Amino acid sequence: MNPADGVYCTFSSSLRGTGAWPRIGRIGLATQSGLVGTYCIALLTERGAGFSHYVATGNEADVDVAACIAWLAQDDATEVILTYLEGCRDGARLREALALCAARGKPVVAMKVGVSEAGAAATASHTGTLAGNDAGYQAAFDAAGVWRARSLEEAADVAVACTAGKLPRGKRLGVITVSGGAGALLADAAAEDGLEMPELPEEAQRKIRALVPFASPRNPVDATAQTANDRTLLNRMMAIMMGEEGEPARFDLFIAFLGFIAENADSFAITMPALEELRRRYPETAFILSMRGTAEQRRELLDKGFFLCEDPNEALRAATALAHLGTRRTQLAAAAATPAIAAPKPLPAGPLDEAASRRALADAGIPFVPERVARSAAEAAEAARELGLPVALKVLSPDLAHKSDVGGVRLGLRDAAEVEAAYAAMMRRVRGAAPQARIVGALVSPMVQGGVETVLGVHRDPVFGPVVMFGLGGVFVEVFRDVAFRLAPLTRAEALAQIDSIRGRALLEGARGRPRMDKGAIADALVALSRFAAAHAGEVASVEINPFIALPEGGLGVDAVILRG
Amino acid sequence: MNPADGVYCTFSSSLRGTGAWPRIGRIGLATQSGLVGTYCIALLTERGAGFSHYVATGNEADVDVAACIAWLAQDDATEVILTYLEGCRDGARLREALALCAARGKPVVAMKVGVSEAGAAATASHTGTLAGNDAGYQAAFDAAGVWRARSLEEAADVAVACTAGKLPRGKRLGVITVSGGAGALLADAAAEDGLEMPELPEEAQRKIRALVPFASPRNPVDATAQTANDRTLLNRMMAIMMGEEGEPARFDLFIAFLGFIAENADSFAITMPALEELRRRYPETAFILSMRGTAEQRRELLDKGFFLCEDPNEALRAATALAHLGTRRTQLAAAAATPAIAAPKPLPAGPLDEAASRRALADAGIPFVPERVARSAAEAAEAARELGLPVALKVLSPDLAHKSDVGGVRLGLRDAAEVEAAYAAMMRRVRGAAPQARIVGALVSPMVQGGVETVLGVHRDPVFGPVVMFGLGGVFVEVFRDVAFRLAPLTRAEALAQIDSIRGRALLEGARGRPRMDKGAIADALVALSRFAAAHAGEVASVEINPFIALPEGGLGVDAVILRG
Repeated sequence: MNPADGVYCTFSSSLRGTGAWPRIGRIGLATQSGLVGTYCIALLTERGAGFSHYVATGNEADVDVAACIAWLAQDDATEVILTYLEGCRDGARLREALALCAARGKPVVAMKVGVSEAGAAATASHTGTLAGNDAGYQAAFDAAGVWRARSLEEAADVAVACTAGKLPRGKRLGVITVSGGAGALLADAAAEDGLEMPELPEEAQRKIRALVPFASPRNPVDATAQTANDRTLLNRMMAIMMGEEGEPARFDLFIAFLGFIAENADSFAITMPALEELRRRYPETAFILSMRGTAEQRRELLDKGFFLCEDPNEALRAATALAHLGTRRTQLAAAAATPAIAAPKPLPAGPLDEAASRRALADAGIPFVPERVARSAAEAAEAARELGLPVALKVLSPDLAHKSDVGGVRLGLRDAAEVEAAYAAMMRRVRGAAPQARIVGALVSPMVQGGVETVLGVHRDPVFGPVVMFGLGGVFVEVFRDVAFRLAPLTRAEALAQIDSIRGRALLEGARGRPRMDKGAIADALVALSRFAAAHAGEVASVEINPFIALPEGGLGVDAVILRG
Repeated sequence: MNPADGVYCTFSSSLRGTGAWPRIGRIGLATQSGLVGTYCIALLTERGAGFSHYVATGNEADVDVAACIAWLAQDDATEVILTYLEGCRDGARLREALALCAARGKPVVAMKVGVSEAGAAATASHTGTLAGNDAGYQAAFDAAGVWRARSLEEAADVAVACTAGKLPRGKRLGVITVSGGAGALLADAAAEDGLEMPELPEEAQRKIRALVPFASPRNPVDATAQTANDRTLLNRMMAIMMGEEGEPARFDLFIAFLGFIAENADSFAITMPALEELRRRYPETAFILSMRGTAEQRRELLDKGFFLCEDPNEALRAATALAHLGTRRTQLAAAAATPAIAAPKPLPAGPLDEAASRRALADAGIPFVPERVARSAAEAAEAARELGLPVALKVLSPDLAHKSDVGGVRLGLRDAAEVEAAYAAMMRRVRGAAPQARIVGALVSPMVQGGVETVLGVHRDPVFGPVVMFGLGGVFVEVFRDVAFRLAPLTRAEALAQIDSIRGRALLEGARGRPRMDKGAIADALVALSRFAAAHAGEVASVEINPFIALPEGGLGVDAVILRG
């Protein structure tokens, strides 16, 4: 559909409905479901917004949704892109299309389904595309600063809010309400979403209290129901909140919860000019009004630079999305282009045992615990003396990926005699448990203490290629699923953001009186791993460095497995 | 407001707005914010529903929201209760009111704000009530089976959905759509919310494929846009999904995503009788329609037993709420009355050292690791020999709550000589670090191995009294906040549900090849702790059993601290 040219190529009956006719506007839609797309258009119309173009790509026999997004990124009539995705066949094309949107500064709002098993089955039968692993999509969205909406209404809200004004450059939120209840609700939601609500300066609070002694003056400001007795109170309080004319804006985002004010023409006639004056004075601030309103009022307000969102929680969610899109756009603009990947050193032929895996990763710039290969008990004891006791002993075999299952790992060996005895016992145990395995000997390495165990990994996503994983060790990954994924290759800033995005990051930051670990060293290792993975994308199926021990200074990989395929 | 009697005692201008006049209905509202209440009424009206009574309690100078909820529980015109809360002064009254609703089988939908610091500050200035700790409110809601809504729109959706028919008794969801996209979206959301989507029997799938070969026949069923060519397809597929007449219902909940069908009078005239026939045939199943519709259509459909919810994610959330309210109502009805708390053994006078704390809790029925008080190094060594080595040694003092901070804990002592030496060294260290502390001696106890560390605790909530906490040890509680709270006293079923509600429960259930721990023993300890806390509610400020080691059979407390106050 292209409403500017009056083209509506659809078999949908949505346009003969009881809703208003769609407006021409600045939102471009590219969806993999025709009905979901027309539904979104109805939601945009209801919110007072219009669209530039709408393409539903059906089974993508030729044109895919990535091509449509790329086209919209270059279309001057389109300022915001709304997409609904079930899956895509060519991840690289989608990444390029999203990067193009980022380069043009156009926010992208995406709804991606097919996350659950049942959802993936449903999309498979719908469009026949590979739903892929959600981690890859999430990583692709993160890399391009896409806002991932959790419902169609949220997607429509955020897209429309983007067209109401400029994207904010920060997360400072000001809130005024005519109901203390709505203020508390908005403050709760802002705290949950990580928006900042700076308290008003003392002087501003004093002025607000002078107008209504029982008002809440901090932020959220509760103007109270007194505003129904004196309609100018609200205007005066909003002006106090925003500060003196000429001063820099106090807030990047401003939400006014005004209840039923728009249903009362007299009241609204008093309030509206004040809002418009603030809108004019603070062009960099995003204004959202949460109140009851008609479709016509939504349209008029949107044209004046205000997004009207009835439900206060939805309004707050839209504010969060705007703050994300705005701050992320600034970060993406500031980020240097990804450095070129140097020509990789070829991997040795055949399956890689642990020593070869470590060597390849160490060549790529990832530090590992020093170790020696011992082919006898005596060699093991000598290596232990040279490396420094206590040591760990691990069986070395190209055929054994899970050494501890066959008794092939011993930790904390304290002296040479213990090392010799452990070597002999280990060889007996492993030969008994895995008679077919080729055993080269054992790896001897010093025990690393005083660090935090992390896991660095890469897997090949069927759609997006190598995806880098970061998490803390063991149960944190396996039980709590506290892991973060990014597409390879990574910049250092992206790697640091990846580390900071896990819930357990406090363990790296000195929680419970522990020393603070060197996140920079982890980031360096992630960057090196991501470049290794990108360079060998065609021949490496997965890499796992588990554990990589983060230390107060630096960090050291201990075990590594590279799987070809 | 009491619309049945035409009473509208409010200064709100909401009734002169452009919206429809409120309907008389079966939802009772009790709120702590007048504007939020009238806002909710507007949301109910928009959804086609009415209300029986609406009370806003203002500053609660006399009547509080708990009294209103209790009144509504006993009001024959009210079937569902919607409440908005900022805080309450008398937790016991609120609990009684919610229990009364549960006893009468009336679902309660609550929106509680003031969770964040800024939100609590906002509510404090609004109504002057103590916002209290959210854990207490959440525990009170859990105990009474209340659905806690996360937005006003969700609260309105759920309350209205409750009035459309009977509450479902299970979580089996059937979904049909005219768009594969919406099906995938609903399947994702159902998986996230824990609803079950049983696959249709082979025979039913075959019948659906016979109608439209490229339909998705499993569940969600995608009837596809073919339904626009033949409007009877949808009806036939829905009938196939539901099964043969007379057979028990396959689904407790049924969502049909029908897009724009209600905007097309011809189509809708074909579909509606089929829906009504299914509604009649399956009175125990909750029916939710997700489609575009007018306020008038929402009202008509609601009167026919269908909740119309435009956004599919919101529709799914309402289904989840119905399933929660229905299954929880069944559980509450089945639960035996809480047993009476036996007269407690009085606590010894003065501050309680660890030995006294353990003794009091052991008397209450909580098993502890055996231990001996040693007043000299020789006594410590003898105790270790009798209890079995290796042992732990902990300084015993009524003045030291955090023993390890002063060097007062040694673990894994392997023989008598090590115990003697450790005792002497510990006394020197502790006297150096805490010269004022009275030192009785040390506690000797055997090391417990092969278990999982948990924490059992109680704190006194300012509104609800003793609240029981359960979590796994250390970082799981402190970093991941993976804890669950319940009000004391607890039944065993509630304690088991509390244990199962933490994310880390997999560690108790044999994750990563470990043995399965005895959750029943933890539950017994939680029940005993909760009764102890309830019996001593007036004099005990907090209890912490940290760790309580869950074992494959049984469980043992190790450390215990009771604080008076």
